[in-house]
Amino acid sequence: MAKTGTFIHDDFLLENKYAQELYHGYAKKQPIIDYHNHLPPQEIAEDKVFGNMTKIWINGDHYKWRAMRTLGVNERFITGESSDKEKFMHWAKTVPYTMRNPLYHWTHLELARYFDIYDLLDEKSAENIYQETSEKLSSPDYSCQNLLRRVHAEVVCTTEDPIDSLEYHKTLAKSDFDVKVSTAFRPDKAILISNKGYNDYVDALGKAANQEINTFNELCDALENRIAYFHQNGCTLCDHGLDRICFEPYTELEVQAIFLKRRNGQDLTQEEASKFQSAILLFLSETYHEYGWVQQLHLGALRNNNARMHSLLGPDTGWDSIGDYPQAQQLSAFLNALDRKDKLTKTIIYNLNPADNEVMASMIGNFNDGSIKGKVQFGSGWWFMDQKDGMTKQMNALSNMGLISCFIGMLTDSRSFLSFPRHEYFRRVLCNLFGDEIQRGELPNDIAWIGKLVQDISYQNAKDYFNF
Amino acid sequence: MAKTGTFIHDDFLLENKYAQELYHGYAKKQPIIDYHNHLPPQEIAEDKVFGNMTKIWINGDHYKWRAMRTLGVNERFITGESSDKEKFMHWAKTVPYTMRNPLYHWTHLELARYFDIYDLLDEKSAENIYQETSEKLSSPDYSCQNLLRRVHAEVVCTTEDPIDSLEYHKTLAKSDFDVKVSTAFRPDKAILISNKGYNDYVDALGKAANQEINTFNELCDALENRIAYFHQNGCTLCDHGLDRICFEPYTELEVQAIFLKRRNGQDLTQEEASKFQSAILLFLSETYHEYGWVQQLHLGALRNNNARMHSLLGPDTGWDSIGDYPQAQQLSAFLNALDRKDKLTKTIIYNLNPADNEVMASMIGNFNDGSIKGKVQFGSGWWFMDQKDGMTKQMNALSNMGLISCFIGMLTDSRSFLSFPRHEYFRRVLCNLFGDEIQRGELPNDIAWIGKLVQDISYQNAKDYFNF
Amino acid sequence: MAKTGTFIHDDFLLENKYAQELYHGYAKKQPIIDYHNHLPPQEIAEDKVFGNMTKIWINGDHYKWRAMRTLGVNERFITGESSDKEKFMHWAKTVPYTMRNPLYHWTHLELARYFDIYDLLDEKSAENIYQETSEKLSSPDYSCQNLLRRVHAEVVCTTEDPIDSLEYHKTLAKSDFDVKVSTAFRPDKAILISNKGYNDYVDALGKAANQEINTFNELCDALENRIAYFHQNGCTLCDHGLDRICFEPYTELEVQAIFLKRRNGQDLTQEEASKFQSAILLFLSETYHEYGWVQQLHLGALRNNNARMHSLLGPDTGWDSIGDYPQAQQLSAFLNALDRKDKLTKTIIYNLNPADNEVMASMIGNFNDGSIKGKVQFGSGWWFMDQKDGMTKQMNALSNMGLISCFIGMLTDSRSFLSFPRHEYFRRVLCNLFGDEIQRGELPNDIAWIGKLVQDISYQNAKDYFNF
Repeated sequence: MAKTGTFIHDDFLLENKYAQELYHGYAKKQPIIDYHNHLPPQEIAEDKVFGNMTKIWINGDHYKWRAMRTLGVNERFITGESSDKEKFMHWAKTVPYTMRNPLYHWTHLELARYFDIYDLLDEKSAENIYQETSEKLSSPDYSCQNLLRRVHAEVVCTTEDPIDSLEYHKTLAKSDFDVKVSTAFRPDKAILISNKGYNDYVDALGKAANQEINTFNELCDALENRIAYFHQNGCTLCDHGLDRICFEPYTELEVQAIFLKRRNGQDLTQEEASKFQSAILLFLSETYHEYGWVQQLHLGALRNNNARMHSLLGPDTGWDSIGDYPQAQQLSAFLNALDRKDKLTKTIIYNLNPADNEVMASMIGNFNDGSIKGKVQFGSGWWFMDQKDGMTKQMNALSNMGLISCFIGMLTDSRSFLSFPRHEYFRRVLCNLFGDEIQRGELPNDIAWIGKLVQDISYQNAKDYFNF
Repeated sequence: MAKTGTFIHDDFLLENKYAQELYHGYAKKQPIIDYHNHLPPQEIAEDKVFGNMTKIWINGDHYKWRAMRTLGVNERFITGESSDKEKFMHWAKTVPYTMRNPLYHWTHLELARYFDIYDLLDEKSAENIYQETSEKLSSPDYSCQNLLRRVHAEVVCTTEDPIDSLEYHKTLAKSDFDVKVSTAFRPDKAILISNKGYNDYVDALGKAANQEINTFNELCDALENRIAYFHQNGCTLCDHGLDRICFEPYTELEVQAIFLKRRNGQDLTQEEASKFQSAILLFLSETYHEYGWVQQLHLGALRNNNARMHSLLGPDTGWDSIGDYPQAQQLSAFLNALDRKDKLTKTIIYNLNPADNEVMASMIGNFNDGSIKGKVQFGSGWWFMDQKDGMTKQMNALSNMGLISCFIGMLTDSRSFLSFPRHEYFRRVLCNLFGDEIQRGELPNDIAWIGKLVQDISYQNAKDYFNF
Repeated sequence: MAKTGTFIHDDFLLENKYAQELYHGYAKKQPIIDYHNHLPPQEIAEDKVFGNMTKIWINGDHYKWRAMRTLGVNERFITGESSDKEKFMHWAKTVPYTMRNPLYHWTHLELARYFDIYDLLDEKSAENIYQETSEKLSSPDYSCQNLLRRVHAEVVCTTEDPIDSLEYHKTLAKSDFDVKVSTAFRPDKAILISNKGYNDYVDALGKAANQEINTFNELCDALENRIAYFHQNGCTLCDHGLDRICFEPYTELEVQAIFLKRRNGQDLTQEEASKFQSAILLFLSETYHEYGWVQQLHLGALRNNNARMHSLLGPDTGWDSIGDYPQAQQLSAFLNALDRKDKLTKTIIYNLNPADNEVMASMIGNFNDGSIKGKVQFGSGWWFMDQKDGMTKQMNALSNMGLISCFIGMLTDSRSFLSFPRHEYFRRVLCNLFGDEIQRGELPNDIAWIGKLVQDISYQNAKDYFNF
């Protein structure tokens, strides 16, 4: 649907003819490989129809919640008891106050791409927009599977805990749904030994792996068992949501004793927890290498800052922020420990604090040894950094300290079926960066070659990297 | 005074018509609420007339001093024995070397706004400019009160120690001066227990509170007494100039013992000082909440680096710089400790190291709980960051990670009566940011709405936030 | 050779007429003072002819190596057994993939400036370019000395270990080579006491100084002996490649014991190594002050991350990255310890992590005391930061927090005779920064004055600072 004269129009974010040519001629037509997100596989398998915008767009979206809370909207209209309609109206009222925040762009890009709505959302337009979107979202044309088809998704990778049965992934594999739905193995709960409920989790893991877990070695066995199970079911990817990589010297005896201590219900010191994390992560990483998986590390968050709201609403409800941990030395030591055994698998490092961009962009070069193109990747701007400014900084650091030509590009990391226009957003920012430098004479005017690079970053590099 | 063709002209820093429309149509006419500065209340109350530029502009301005020292100007012509005229001549000679530093812009904006002088200051123009400004500064038209009227100040908040009698604030409150002059309570000297002279300070505090201070509880009593006194005198604001927030576990018994140890003249370990700071700051903060005050935290400085010059000239004479402390975890723990008791008052966090901008801009979202608009604020670019680049980075981080629409905007933080054009400077930068994005199509061309946002950030948000 | 219509052309990176006027009218014609590099003095003294591009351009260039490895080029074609021609072909194939990395600009600037080649290097052009450059590089016109003459180098400073005999510098001093070749004293190996081989190094140092080194005082004596020797041979500069400045309290007795312990073959704790570094660096720095030298501190690297490749190829082969150490407090304490004895010599602080730019740019102001212009310098963007984005950030931080007018500007820090166009690159970026602000009206349109500043930063400031 070619559009001019509206806020979202064909050349949105494309500031010169080179950028426009790169986007329309090369980037736009690439399918989407969304290699990391948090979509619920059950909803895909059951091809859920949501019925209205609040259910699909506001419920579960802590980005929107934080914005509403900052504006002074009462929690009742956010996660509380009020009606879907009321929640939508409060969000609509908030939208004009989100100018300069990525929510403003995401909102209108999603309305345009999924619903062909080009009006700006605000208090006045809210009624009509709620009406029109509700009608559409009540039709099977807007089922989960059709929403994924609509954006030309080729592959989507959800994220599951090791104890997950992968029931819905199996269903989907047997179905005739033409978008490949894979999974990523995320064993954070097995790693974060100091968490409340750790022992219950280990019991559940034992059950999933059909074994007892009394020792550190049995924990490793159970995890390997689940890796094999995930692998059988097509998984080739894992993920870790760790604030930072701990990698401190430890002995096997120490780690065994630490695990037993925790299994006996005792609390650990921070040093003990760090040693345990060092050991279990090394074991996991070596195992991923055996299976030929790609590992992802999402570093830099400071989570659950607001205890009062956490106790009311649970995790991932908008009370997280950016940490300022030292990252370089222990991350380097961890990667080196794998590399010196020749067991460093393909790795993507995501970083939440943009102050660390250059640390990460230069770190990956230490382990890119010529064995394959872009073996260690600096992942795309993540969470708070998933916006034009954050993406630009990530791509500039990667370009200056490494090769953006080898970059595997964008992923949504989202819980929502309406987030896929973020790929379009990323591609527009990408094309605009290259187009701007062509115009300034910092790159030669070779649209065919730069078009190829843009195509690679939008699609082909990820396809090759993951062997999808 | 409309001006074109001069360096400072009507559209200075306003790079397109949208920016110009926003500034001239919305921002410019707003009054000034300067909610944090270091003006001497005595000079306002006595309506001092300075007589020449050195006295009002160079004496006391460590920004200018640092620039002169960097250029190789001898201290004699900076803080030393030379005449006011000589000092001015050395500053004038330095000005052309300050290009790209905010001093260059501030200098010419201040000459234009207060003195209607549009010539560039340098060695050649210095004589005439000194002459002309001295004449004006000798007239009652340029008294402190008239200087504040001239810039349409509505409220100014100075900063006082708990032991201050607020004598001049009382005088001003009874006077017919039409600019409201309030104060902010700044108890740093009561918190920084390891400082030389701490015990003398505590004695003075006891005297001000009319009580003995032998125990930690008595210290708290005395501080609460002074808070009540400040409150009676119209204060609703406090400030803390701490390098970073220490918030470490402590027990009441420990803190009592630490205070006694110090009162007995002993030195404390760093851990003891941190525990004490944690306890006293929590007490103060809870008390501010009781009184409904706004608390300010100025974080990130590394002070008094040059011992030789510090011993010659004392603190705040240009020997401070930017620190690189980890800030996130303990700041979060402190805010959380208040929030979980429901005693977190409105809070403004200022941050000196721009590498921490995203940490701070995301941190405030953890405690914005919908209770009021913009309850926890990421304060405007401060000290070394009080310039176009620093302001822009702060506003971009705030926009991307929070809502700039809820921002309470600018303050001078200045010791000088000639610094108020920094509000104009901020507003121009602000309007230019929005105008630039309208032009790029990143914001819709809705000048009325964006004009309202600009107006809010320039004035209305602060007015509402502080209930001025 | 005026050029238009090619990728590298006369106005490359100069985006408006002011920038062009500043560059062509002021910056371009300045000679080059390359006050810090790693050129091999033997090759200059013997006036080596390299014969082909691989030998002079690829061998030894870990920037290019990292790029090739990232693209997936096998080590055989990088540092391995393949022929010079094959290596060149692999580099040529890599070049189009380096777009947005400084290598892309450096490559074409170097081909243009040294070989008058304006074609873009890629697989297709590689054969011809290899041919043409090999012919030229086989002629005495392209000897080391002629390459330095070709770029109008006035002074170059190489970097030598204290045990170096300076044999080739002596030869050069006596020769009629018209470019001054000086040296910088770099005693890292004497400082890094925990390094393997430390004792062997100390023995070698003793031999060079013609004395035994059994005690800390003897170590100091030997180093002072070598400083005197370097000084006799025209050296006025030193350099330290330390990840960060350690400056922790120590006693003389402790340091003596630590040195003895190490001399007896024992390993040290990190605390012991830090105390030793604090003491030896203070001693060295005080000695530099006595001799009137300039000291350089290159801070912020995280070295030798990849143990496997380090053991195969040794240090400085492309396995280093950017560290995230806290820098401010101990650096400040070190500078202060020197300053309070009035023994702080002229100092240049380089910083690898751009997140620390503002820390460094404000730190230098703490010790600029008016004694000479720009006494403590924030050094130009270094290593990973030696590119347009990195240079721009360094110059913006320096401008906003200090005076760019006092900046001593660019140096190559390079091991290659073909890197000198980086001075041109820097000057173009510099002129473009000023030109851009003139156009925006952020600087007055005073080309003569700003031309003078640009000239100072390109050449005159360094000349005055080093007394060259």
